[in-house]
Amino acid sequence: MPRILAIETTDIRFPTSTRLDGSDAMNPDPDYSAAYLEILTDAAPALSGHAFVFTIGRGNDVQVAALEALKGHLVGRELESVVSDMGSTYRELVGDSQLRWLGPEKGVMHMAIGGAVNALWDIKAKQAGLPLWQLLGRMTPEEIVDLVDFRYLSNALTPEEALAILREAVPGRPHREAQLLAIGYPAYTTSPGWLGYSDEKLARLCRQAIADGFQQIKLKVGANLADDIRRLSVARDVCGPNFPIAIDANQRWEVSEAISWVKALAQFHPTWVEEPTSPDDVLGHQQIARAISPIRVASGEHAHNRVIFKQLLQAGAIDVMQIDAVRVAGVNENIANLLLAAKYEVPVCPHAGGVGLCEAVQHLSMFDYVAVSGTTENRAIEYVDHLHEHFLAPTEIRQGNYIAPRAPGAGFEMKPESRARFTWNPDDVVA
Amino acid sequence: MPRILAIETTDIRFPTSTRLDGSDAMNPDPDYSAAYLEILTDAAPALSGHAFVFTIGRGNDVQVAALEALKGHLVGRELESVVSDMGSTYRELVGDSQLRWLGPEKGVMHMAIGGAVNALWDIKAKQAGLPLWQLLGRMTPEEIVDLVDFRYLSNALTPEEALAILREAVPGRPHREAQLLAIGYPAYTTSPGWLGYSDEKLARLCRQAIADGFQQIKLKVGANLADDIRRLSVARDVCGPNFPIAIDANQRWEVSEAISWVKALAQFHPTWVEEPTSPDDVLGHQQIARAISPIRVASGEHAHNRVIFKQLLQAGAIDVMQIDAVRVAGVNENIANLLLAAKYEVPVCPHAGGVGLCEAVQHLSMFDYVAVSGTTENRAIEYVDHLHEHFLAPTEIRQGNYIAPRAPGAGFEMKPESRARFTWNPDDVVA
Repeated sequence: MPRILAIETTDIRFPTSTRLDGSDAMNPDPDYSAAYLEILTDAAPALSGHAFVFTIGRGNDVQVAALEALKGHLVGRELESVVSDMGSTYRELVGDSQLRWLGPEKGVMHMAIGGAVNALWDIKAKQAGLPLWQLLGRMTPEEIVDLVDFRYLSNALTPEEALAILREAVPGRPHREAQLLAIGYPAYTTSPGWLGYSDEKLARLCRQAIADGFQQIKLKVGANLADDIRRLSVARDVCGPNFPIAIDANQRWEVSEAISWVKALAQFHPTWVEEPTSPDDVLGHQQIARAISPIRVASGEHAHNRVIFKQLLQAGAIDVMQIDAVRVAGVNENIANLLLAAKYEVPVCPHAGGVGLCEAVQHLSMFDYVAVSGTTENRAIEYVDHLHEHFLAPTEIRQGNYIAPRAPGAGFEMKPESRARFTWNPDDVVA
Repeated sequence: MPRILAIETTDIRFPTSTRLDGSDAMNPDPDYSAAYLEILTDAAPALSGHAFVFTIGRGNDVQVAALEALKGHLVGRELESVVSDMGSTYRELVGDSQLRWLGPEKGVMHMAIGGAVNALWDIKAKQAGLPLWQLLGRMTPEEIVDLVDFRYLSNALTPEEALAILREAVPGRPHREAQLLAIGYPAYTTSPGWLGYSDEKLARLCRQAIADGFQQIKLKVGANLADDIRRLSVARDVCGPNFPIAIDANQRWEVSEAISWVKALAQFHPTWVEEPTSPDDVLGHQQIARAISPIRVASGEHAHNRVIFKQLLQAGAIDVMQIDAVRVAGVNENIANLLLAAKYEVPVCPHAGGVGLCEAVQHLSMFDYVAVSGTTENRAIEYVDHLHEHFLAPTEIRQGNYIAPRAPGAGFEMKPESRARFTWNPDDVVA
């Protein structure tokens, strides 16, 4: 029987800060980075699982240390005993009481567990010869419910309710799977809207986005109100009165500031305002959502676990839920998040971009469409045209849709030559 | 001018799991550990700053890696430029956008920043020749307000409100400082109540607690209801009908389970129930607090930053606020937490125990008494009789009171021989 032989970790950093791609009001100079892990097995034919935690530079080494801390749970074990019951494996990792103290269920340690869980799903999908979204989308409702940790959720979502949601979606699964394979899943693009770009570049990229078939763009805001008014005016001019333009403040505002700032931008009819304040502030988001309605509030890329998502939904604090593939404890916790969104009838429009986040999160939205919500209405996955060339199965966009991936696996695997080339050397940088 | 020469880190672990001290419903086998840092300077006479992040074993190495990641911010800098304006230094560390991504403001990276901030306060207090509580308690209200980051707080607490709270306390400061030096600050003890103890040991330790002058004890609950009823019955018998007995579920319950479990224990009149569910669940705590009133809800030892405390207070979700010296970003963020509690008129009863938490957190309660809330009514610091012998200035308890520390510094400094003896050797353990 094959065993897990080792976990190899790599500190990979791309020097993106030099071009102001990815610049926003809170993150002026991100170096898109991946705390990367490969779970090696002695299976034949060769089989290994890849995943990473996304960071934006400094501290990627800390994230790698957290991945290393999980070796004791996995290395040496029989592979099947680990991947055959992914619900138990996930609960074992999250439930290590000593590691749990470092969160609990948040931050560096929790994201590391997400990395390990995702790498195991990569193995499981490769074993099945399927892309992750299809593997998940063909599991029975009972099998899917077994993947979820309902701890702390039962006052919002019970296993029975989750099962009912999943069962209702079963009859339409084959049709929707075929739809995805034929057409893909809607995307929107953030590429035009980085704060560091000139108005000319913004206008050009807006035109390009529409020509490329995207159904929405997003602009970063929150550093300077006069600039935001000017940039939104440029974008609205180029895009016309009805094209959806979202805005993203990246946590920049106080609650009252968010309300007055968004009201000053309301003339441009933003479709949503994203991360208006601290991602931890459920009550603050609720206050903002009530004050700026009908402009919608979106958040979630920094929501650190299902308990925060639960509360955002219970409080009516978000109108759009933005999961992230690598912020929480992996595929399993994101299935809980998708089920919560379905229960509260809030559309999920995942966060992506960075490095590899598009490649990873598309599987979750496609699974959601096939087996959970059963719809793409009001839904789109963020798309940013960065760094896709480093992946074995890079994201493909056609007519503003994510083309459904067909390669077996979970989408995280980076080309060996890219990993080698961008492995971080601490001597390169004066910290 | 003296400079910061280096930051030395140490992975220190005490094998406490072998004796079931510290066992509770979520943490059956903690090995009390410290990710320890010493900030070395070239000042004469010799001056260095000590602090640590407390963990319970596995992952302490990850926490040490996070401390290491802060070297670039501090090493080589002129000491005065760092410690003369601790508000700016704290905001610089918390505001590093690349490191912030790893939280934001939560978990391993945020606790590491707390460690660095606390070690700098240790230097500052030693420079002043004062224990931290006295140094802080003698700063002007304006100086104290400058230490706080009001970001994300302004819909609950403004700098002007904070200033008013602090100014009101100024006239009574000398009297209260003298009171602390004469009598100390009230303590309660958790030593009797660990889950792993027999009923006989529980009864004996309850008797001892009363004989020692403690004004409250606390029992761990939540693993088994029949056991809890039996153990609370033993404790209530020994302590008599009016002695305050708190109970602590360590996050074990669902919301509805917490309500029914506490109601089943209401016959024993617990003075508060602590951490009934996920520490992230503000709305869940609110629901529990409303259902079990007049039994009070206490939480906060795992509240990861001031935004969570803000919401717990705004929602009326806690009746007792339990700060921890090393969970948030150090002294500065805890000053924000104390000011929030004062604004909402909720008593602060800090979490302590573990290793060194009593030594550290007493400074914050004493500062609160002198300069913020101005009262000890309904307040007591947790006390656990573990591992004090490893500290240069170990906690002293007399007649159920924490004796005010007189040694200059912030209280974190561990004896060099203890640090050396309990430095963790990975080869000792099969993970």
